Amino acid sequence: MPPNTLPTDYAPEALPAPSRLESFSDGVIAVIITIMVLEFKLPQEPGPKAFITDVIPTLAVYLLSFTYTGIYWINHNHLVNRLKRVDAPILYANLLLLFCLSLLPFATSYVLSEKFNSFSVAVYAGELFLSGLGFVVLSAAVTRHFHRTGTANPVKLATQKAEGRKGFLSLALYALAVPLAYWHPSMAAADLALGTLLWIVPGFMLPASRHSESAGSS
Amino acid sequence: MPPNTLPTDYAPEALPAPSRLESFSDGVIAVIITIMVLEFKLPQEPGPKAFITDVIPTLAVYLLSFTYTGIYWINHNHLVNRLKRVDAPILYANLLLLFCLSLLPFATSYVLSEKFNSFSVAVYAGELFLSGLGFVVLSAAVTRHFHRTGTANPVKLATQKAEGRKGFLSLALYALAVPLAYWHPSMAAADLALGTLLWIVPGFMLPASRHSESAGSS
Amino acid sequence: MPPNTLPTDYAPEALPAPSRLESFSDGVIAVIITIMVLEFKLPQEPGPKAFITDVIPTLAVYLLSFTYTGIYWINHNHLVNRLKRVDAPILYANLLLLFCLSLLPFATSYVLSEKFNSFSVAVYAGELFLSGLGFVVLSAAVTRHFHRTGTANPVKLATQKAEGRKGFLSLALYALAVPLAYWHPSMAAADLALGTLLWIVPGFMLPASRHSESAGSS
Amino acid sequence: MPPNTLPTDYAPEALPAPSRLESFSDGVIAVIITIMVLEFKLPQEPGPKAFITDVIPTLAVYLLSFTYTGIYWINHNHLVNRLKRVDAPILYANLLLLFCLSLLPFATSYVLSEKFNSFSVAVYAGELFLSGLGFVVLSAAVTRHFHRTGTANPVKLATQKAEGRKGFLSLALYALAVPLAYWHPSMAAADLALGTLLWIVPGFMLPASRHSESAGSS
Repeated sequence: MPPNTLPTDYAPEALPAPSRLESFSDGVIAVIITIMVLEFKLPQEPGPKAFITDVIPTLAVYLLSFTYTGIYWINHNHLVNRLKRVDAPILYANLLLLFCLSLLPFATSYVLSEKFNSFSVAVYAGELFLSGLGFVVLSAAVTRHFHRTGTANPVKLATQKAEGRKGFLSLALYALAVPLAYWHPSMAAADLALGTLLWIVPGFMLPASRHSESAGSS
Repeated sequence: MPPNTLPTDYAPEALPAPSRLESFSDGVIAVIITIMVLEFKLPQEPGPKAFITDVIPTLAVYLLSFTYTGIYWINHNHLVNRLKRVDAPILYANLLLLFCLSLLPFATSYVLSEKFNSFSVAVYAGELFLSGLGFVVLSAAVTRHFHRTGTANPVKLATQKAEGRKGFLSLALYALAVPLAYWHPSMAAADLALGTLLWIVPGFMLPASRHSESAGSS
Repeated sequence: MPPNTLPTDYAPEALPAPSRLESFSDGVIAVIITIMVLEFKLPQEPGPKAFITDVIPTLAVYLLSFTYTGIYWINHNHLVNRLKRVDAPILYANLLLLFCLSLLPFATSYVLSEKFNSFSVAVYAGELFLSGLGFVVLSAAVTRHFHRTGTANPVKLATQKAEGRKGFLSLALYALAVPLAYWHPSMAAADLALGTLLWIVPGFMLPASRHSESAGSS
Repeated sequence: MPPNTLPTDYAPEALPAPSRLESFSDGVIAVIITIMVLEFKLPQEPGPKAFITDVIPTLAVYLLSFTYTGIYWINHNHLVNRLKRVDAPILYANLLLLFCLSLLPFATSYVLSEKFNSFSVAVYAGELFLSGLGFVVLSAAVTRHFHRTGTANPVKLATQKAEGRKGFLSLALYALAVPLAYWHPSMAAADLALGTLLWIVPGFMLPASRHSESAGSS
């Protein structure tokens, strides 16, 4: 292929495949999600009573954070699965998302140690907002890559657009939780749960998957 | 391919390959299995005597938990190897299994710190029951995926069915260990070992492998 | 192929593909980058004031180290992406780079605990110099591999040469930061930032990517 | 292929590819090698003098253990690269090797805390013997797999045989270090170094690589 047939200075085939972005992200999220559970402390006293009072509440909160991280991993999986190549903006946006997610164990410990007072719930909501923002930025970098390289069909682009709307809706819910935490922390918690529930089924609010992604790979 | 030729709203080719499920699970299990061994403490006093009394018993217990986690990894390897694509229920069932497995280091520390009294052995048996349940749920999600997509031959389905029976048998043995721990902890330990021995040879109680999986890939 | 048709004793097709170098490096860098963030301590006192004074400055410094490690990961990604096979010198040079990078969390903690005095900033600059040296050595091992096996086109070789120049320039800037730390620590910090900025855009100072790497893979 | 054309009950194509063995091993070794370096403690007092006395000796010892683990990773890389499929004995032998390697950080801390007295050097030599044994067992499982499946050419088998001899030679050197530690610890250290030097060049004492492995893949 003579160089002058390339209309732009952007050659998608020169870019790396997403395999390392995937394995690096898997490694980082695996360490985040596992270290959380390994932080469990032994109860101070022996016997079933100390076990139930000390271990069960911590277990419940960490199960939530594990679920939350797991949902991000599943949606990251589906987002990156749409890509054939990755460029530098996608790699940096992915690092930003990983950085935001890596603050979740700290926010979880903080909300536990502060016994769910208004400020700590607002911090936790702020951390969920940050992680959501990281995901929206990564999704936008993917959309930009599709537009610059022309490697996506209309259906993939529609999926990206719908996922962007879903991302902004959950960001709005997370942002709302910050003032709600000062009015009533449990209302904020319900609002945060709502913002996360949107993502449990990866395809919710997106075009039907048989159209969107199968068409892209044929 | 025109959309109306698809009989269901479920297009297997739109789903991600299991590569990321594998690398994420490998990462999580690698952290679980390694952190356990790295938790070893130096003996309080110098010399061979303190080394033998302090290090050898801990080493023996962690060797058991390492083996146990390793057996789950090998069987996970064989289960996921049957898959070409993964859907959301498989991804969530896999997260559940990883969460259950990640509690094993805590249960191991607990049973050591409580010196194998009845309650701590019952907690350990409960954790093995949970991990077994996680594996049965993942295996059921794989079977459901095979039925919905029609991507498995009869031999793969027979393997899944046989593995399900094996899973329920080991669950029954783990559940039995909870009351046994109150009658005699060492009987419970023997019962737990029996439930685990079933899984040491991945093909035990399953149809011969030349039929089951080679046929599936041809 | 009869053995006597091989002009050298060096058969590239006998060497492993870079996949394991990639996944091992991803694992090591994932642990380095995540452990840094997990080292966050809860503030000593409750409430927003302690949160802001204790958490925000640590967060800022760790964000820098996270970014720094992330930039190395991205450039490592692009460097290794040029390879089809890896030989023992590349594997050892990669281990050297990983060792140097793994000292970054320690250097970060040290500069924080010493409150940015001249010696601690010089130690931090020395660690950045070491990491830069590790990258230059790995890049040189890749160039040597290209020359010995003849597996690179002229454009890949030109990219390697340009990247080598960029590496030596940033090494010079890092080395300069060691004496600067004794003159004025903030000048040293600016100099270190300059040496790192060179690497933020992976293609900066390199031949245009459509020529360099796409030509290599066609 | 009709089932009755299979002469044995062993169908290599039913077995998983080595990709997960590789990624799991990479994960475990990545955690082992990184955690060692992250265990560095800050010096007790500020300033260059405390830095040099506290940090430099620990750095030197951990550099050795990092190198040692890295050499095992490189040789593991070359060994597994010969395989197309893995069976259960290979998976278990690999777990054994990973368990042995995971004890190295503990042995390193122990020899440091005991100030290289005879017993601690003997413990360290014992740990190197164990890791060497793990590698010999894994290599034997690979050879057995080649014989059972007939998937290796004569050259691969010759490489395995030569690697086995190399393994036994280093085991003999490690075993010799245990009594040597009671005679003179520094002689034991030299002997251990000799046993490890054999493995620095992966192809040392093996048939020339152009014959051994390139022929296998053609």
